[in-house]
Amino acid sequence: MKAEIIAVGTELLMGEILNTNAQEIARELYHLGVDVYHQSVVGDNLIRVSKELETAFERADLVITTGGLGPTRDDITKEAAAKFLDRKMILDNNTLESLKLFFNSRGLEVNEGNKRQAYFPEESTIITNNNGTAPGCMVEFENKILIILPGPPREVKPMMKEFVLPYLKKLQGKVFVSTTLNICGIGEGHMEEKIIDLVEKQSNPTIAPYAKEKGLTLRITASGKTQEEAKKILEPIEKEIEKRLGLDIFAKGETDLESVVSDMLIEKGLTLSTAESCTGGMLSSRIINYPGASKFFKEGLVTYSNESKIKTLGVQSETIEKYGAVSEQVAKEMAHRVTIVSKSDIGISVTGIAGPDGGTKEKPVGLVYIGLSINGDIKLKKINLWGNRANIRRRTTTEALDFLRRELINLG
Amino acid sequence: MKAEIIAVGTELLMGEILNTNAQEIARELYHLGVDVYHQSVVGDNLIRVSKELETAFERADLVITTGGLGPTRDDITKEAAAKFLDRKMILDNNTLESLKLFFNSRGLEVNEGNKRQAYFPEESTIITNNNGTAPGCMVEFENKILIILPGPPREVKPMMKEFVLPYLKKLQGKVFVSTTLNICGIGEGHMEEKIIDLVEKQSNPTIAPYAKEKGLTLRITASGKTQEEAKKILEPIEKEIEKRLGLDIFAKGETDLESVVSDMLIEKGLTLSTAESCTGGMLSSRIINYPGASKFFKEGLVTYSNESKIKTLGVQSETIEKYGAVSEQVAKEMAHRVTIVSKSDIGISVTGIAGPDGGTKEKPVGLVYIGLSINGDIKLKKINLWGNRANIRRRTTTEALDFLRRELINLG
Repeated sequence: MKAEIIAVGTELLMGEILNTNAQEIARELYHLGVDVYHQSVVGDNLIRVSKELETAFERADLVITTGGLGPTRDDITKEAAAKFLDRKMILDNNTLESLKLFFNSRGLEVNEGNKRQAYFPEESTIITNNNGTAPGCMVEFENKILIILPGPPREVKPMMKEFVLPYLKKLQGKVFVSTTLNICGIGEGHMEEKIIDLVEKQSNPTIAPYAKEKGLTLRITASGKTQEEAKKILEPIEKEIEKRLGLDIFAKGETDLESVVSDMLIEKGLTLSTAESCTGGMLSSRIINYPGASKFFKEGLVTYSNESKIKTLGVQSETIEKYGAVSEQVAKEMAHRVTIVSKSDIGISVTGIAGPDGGTKEKPVGLVYIGLSINGDIKLKKINLWGNRANIRRRTTTEALDFLRRELINLG
Repeated sequence: MKAEIIAVGTELLMGEILNTNAQEIARELYHLGVDVYHQSVVGDNLIRVSKELETAFERADLVITTGGLGPTRDDITKEAAAKFLDRKMILDNNTLESLKLFFNSRGLEVNEGNKRQAYFPEESTIITNNNGTAPGCMVEFENKILIILPGPPREVKPMMKEFVLPYLKKLQGKVFVSTTLNICGIGEGHMEEKIIDLVEKQSNPTIAPYAKEKGLTLRITASGKTQEEAKKILEPIEKEIEKRLGLDIFAKGETDLESVVSDMLIEKGLTLSTAESCTGGMLSSRIINYPGASKFFKEGLVTYSNESKIKTLGVQSETIEKYGAVSEQVAKEMAHRVTIVSKSDIGISVTGIAGPDGGTKEKPVGLVYIGLSINGDIKLKKINLWGNRANIRRRTTTEALDFLRRELINLG
């Protein structure tokens, strides 16, 4: 099946907003084995949207549109579709009733604009929108499918998940099984190198790496006639990838590194404190993003100044004088001292040069020491990062959490 | 002038990466008064890219492409352009020499793939790429302009800024002047309400709001025959907007809230410490994103547990028992105590319910108290936020910094 994605919206053409829907939809279609051949963005203009649909259907069997379903006069996607399909616009009473309920419960009347949201091209299947007032719709014609969705990503995502994807899966007569591997401690290039032969050899399962802000994921999706068959196709490849990446995979499914580390700490009954210099609280902040952090997190000390390292943490002034604040020795002392001061089983410390200034030949920008005191045992990790101040600091927190994760695994 | 943007790349069609170039280019063109009528994404396919160029130029005077300039066989944008233009591909010796220099300095030879990067459609103007090996090019034909740029955004941005925009400005015989207002303490909807009549009335200057992760900006761009004339058009509107938004504008130009607050603290010679509960270090982390933070930032205490609030900060256990950890009283004590413990002029504290659990009817998720002790004077701000845990925490840090900013202005 060949597909195209059309986003409707003058705000996209003006660069006011980013077209994240196109990526989201393209990614999902890719995993269903549907080839996306073309994406486009057009303004809120009846003639142009209708013409765009015509062009798209000359090439594709499936077209998904986003945007242009709002209550204002310039929202014309459904009308453009009706024009292209040469169908009438028909009022859907169920939708109108829902809109009335929605507005009346807020003490408002349904106005003319909102009423337009209840009209659809004749013989459409309505796609419920649980997160907004604009339902979508689907029209099947001449062995082709047109799916019309609203613009806001937080409405599009659930509508894709709850309606579009199940519908397309059924249509293809296939069952899909997928797994997501979360990866850290390895770069995207390096990871790809380790599995490139698998990626290139396979079309079922598909293997797709995504670099997100918080780390790398690898999504593996297999299809088959039955769930069983799909699983059978998925598993050997999944196992092979797991074997090759080993501990670089920190979890499967929807999660993040801080949650994995937090769960390990809770399970082992260990408490944690942090002592941060260049990351300045970013590490403790990531840990506290985990809602149950109070179960193991004792305290975080942001000792950015030398004075604070000495007075609050009790790092020896001689150590700082002799080796400098950014040193193996200070990192170790910080990690050790924070376990004492905050009475915790584990202390993790960060000291480094985040830039843009302060680098020297011996200690360049991007040099970071991470100290870890774990049940009295003190360990150290030295890293060299590049990028701007914000990047160096952000990646340091990932390195610190990954360091802790691997040492917790070593504890057994 | 009518423009279209074409992104070339199978990885975009597969949803592997987000098409940020389209937004970036669209935004810049909008401010030049160039109307973008259409954007599209096509795969790395000679015929399809050539056909897309044909379609685009039936509608537009200017087409900018991104992507498909790499050294591999599937990078075909320039070849597709040559096919569309019916021109030969010609070797550019200067480019080849630069490539040789680049690779030889890294101990490598220029291979056949890289050599292809030195070929361009006949009579192209080469656009230098200082951040990658693929130069772009521009072709003028029949009163139309084709601009071909590489794919990576960090290469596209400077090439736009250094070559494309100056070229287009010159072409239009206009001079452009623009200013960016940074805004906080007010939502996007509320801000637009205050200036909607100005936005709707104007086409020169253009007024465009952008909601970025870190806050709201408003970019005003005027054009004229001379710099003087453009300024004259810009200034009255800028002044009117400044009048209407008042203190909600925290700065002009490229900066952020933490830098503005940091500069104020340094100028006034005041030192700062933080005491955080639900934000867990995110506030201190934002402050330390300012490279000169050591000039004023004494210490950050992440006192997530009650024990830590009592023991490390010296908050009275009775206050917590009587009012709860999330209360006006505890926020005030935290702010006061951190100035004592950390010997600083200003203490800022955060305690709140970030969710997803822990909310009650009296104290719902999103309730946050921010305490501020400033030269011994203790102030409080109560806010009610919505959204998920990460959002509530992030927005709390903005509210806290904005609170501090407004109080520093009050100090005079």
